[in-house]
Amino acid sequence: MLLGKVVGTVVSTKKEPELEGLRMLLVRELDAAWQATGKVIVAVDAVNAGDGEIVLFAAGSSARQTLATKDRPVDHVIMAIVDTVTANGAVVYDKQRDA
Amino acid sequence: MLLGKVVGTVVSTKKEPELEGLRMLLVRELDAAWQATGKVIVAVDAVNAGDGEIVLFAAGSSARQTLATKDRPVDHVIMAIVDTVTANGAVVYDKQRDA
Amino acid sequence: MLLGKVVGTVVSTKKEPELEGLRMLLVRELDAAWQATGKVIVAVDAVNAGDGEIVLFAAGSSARQTLATKDRPVDHVIMAIVDTVTANGAVVYDKQRDA
Amino acid sequence: MLLGKVVGTVVSTKKEPELEGLRMLLVRELDAAWQATGKVIVAVDAVNAGDGEIVLFAAGSSARQTLATKDRPVDHVIMAIVDTVTANGAVVYDKQRDA
Amino acid sequence: MLLGKVVGTVVSTKKEPELEGLRMLLVRELDAAWQATGKVIVAVDAVNAGDGEIVLFAAGSSARQTLATKDRPVDHVIMAIVDTVTANGAVVYDKQRDA
Repeated sequence: MLLGKVVGTVVSTKKEPELEGLRMLLVRELDAAWQATGKVIVAVDAVNAGDGEIVLFAAGSSARQTLATKDRPVDHVIMAIVDTVTANGAVVYDKQRDA
Repeated sequence: MLLGKVVGTVVSTKKEPELEGLRMLLVRELDAAWQATGKVIVAVDAVNAGDGEIVLFAAGSSARQTLATKDRPVDHVIMAIVDTVTANGAVVYDKQRDA
Repeated sequence: MLLGKVVGTVVSTKKEPELEGLRMLLVRELDAAWQATGKVIVAVDAVNAGDGEIVLFAAGSSARQTLATKDRPVDHVIMAIVDTVTANGAVVYDKQRDA
Repeated sequence: MLLGKVVGTVVSTKKEPELEGLRMLLVRELDAAWQATGKVIVAVDAVNAGDGEIVLFAAGSSARQTLATKDRPVDHVIMAIVDTVTANGAVVYDKQRDA
Repeated sequence: MLLGKVVGTVVSTKKEPELEGLRMLLVRELDAAWQATGKVIVAVDAVNAGDGEIVLFAAGSSARQTLATKDRPVDHVIMAIVDTVTANGAVVYDKQRDA
């Protein structure tokens, strides 16, 4: 999985029927300094994530292993909202502290 | 999924039988500034997308989860035409406005 | 799928039994200017492609969705020979014209 | 698989139910000089790896082939703790020596 | 598949039970000039490859399509030892000549 920051939303009315009802969020990958400077992907939201939150997302066939995405043409899913990230002994992200 | 812009078409007569009848479009990935400057891929069109439209496409085994692409040797599919993209609180793409 | 140019062949006698009889071609990815300057991969040939031809290839599990490659340890397959590529309204590749 | 170094942990309370009980570790990829300067990914720990250890991790659907991760939305798993790495005839990493 | 050069070995005693008995080799990807300057990956050896040999390896779920790797958490497998590579009409690698 990769860490990313929710930075926006994508809306589409003309789409595959299997995508109906799925919320699609823009997620920007965090770099090694924990900044949202990386690649922007679109992920289905399985955990009701909010704008600006740091999340974990999975890619590929693993993105179809949630109830919301099973058998759908989805290749990225947000499946966790991050509380804390600890790296090299320091808390580099704390949702309460950094919100 | 990734955001891309439909920039062209690919025609092939000599191909795997399972590809018969599928429309293959050239899609160029959008960068973080929402410009079509990224990698060019070829995706099967599952939503009747048109030239110049901003679309969502899925890769890998997820690309075979549409009716059109099931069990076919297809690893990219366009499965949504994008209406709006909102990032950092601003509408960075609006199909009506930007068309 | 990606566009590539067939640039060579790979021969191997000591290999997995499931690879027997498969033709393995060197393919170089086309860049956004349609030049074969990209990554070099090895793909199984499912359409009898020839040296110098522009082809479409699929990667990952989708590469196993052809009759030739089913259930084999193959992660790239050439499944179409390209006739024409049209981008931004212009024919950027035409097999007859450019051969 | 890729070689990486365990550099931290990720904690999340709001997540997909299938992720309950899984330990999620931050892993930084090793470069060709065996330094942890590469991409940072989050992997489920299947072997009780510790901070600072060099590990092997698998990605994609292969990450779901462990008892801990079967059918879960997990796309990276740590499935071995490395004792030694030998490259070009020299032991470039030895857990006992380099710990 | 990609071409690579076997450059070393990885030894691990603490690992997933499904990995028991598998030989894990360090492989460095060949670049477009056929030099081993690329990314270093760890692949299971399915063909008894030796140090310094040029090999073909497959990634992703295709890496599990060999008898040795079936249903195991393995995402790279060496499934052929290369005899010759011909590119642009010239033999750029010949195992007998270049050994």
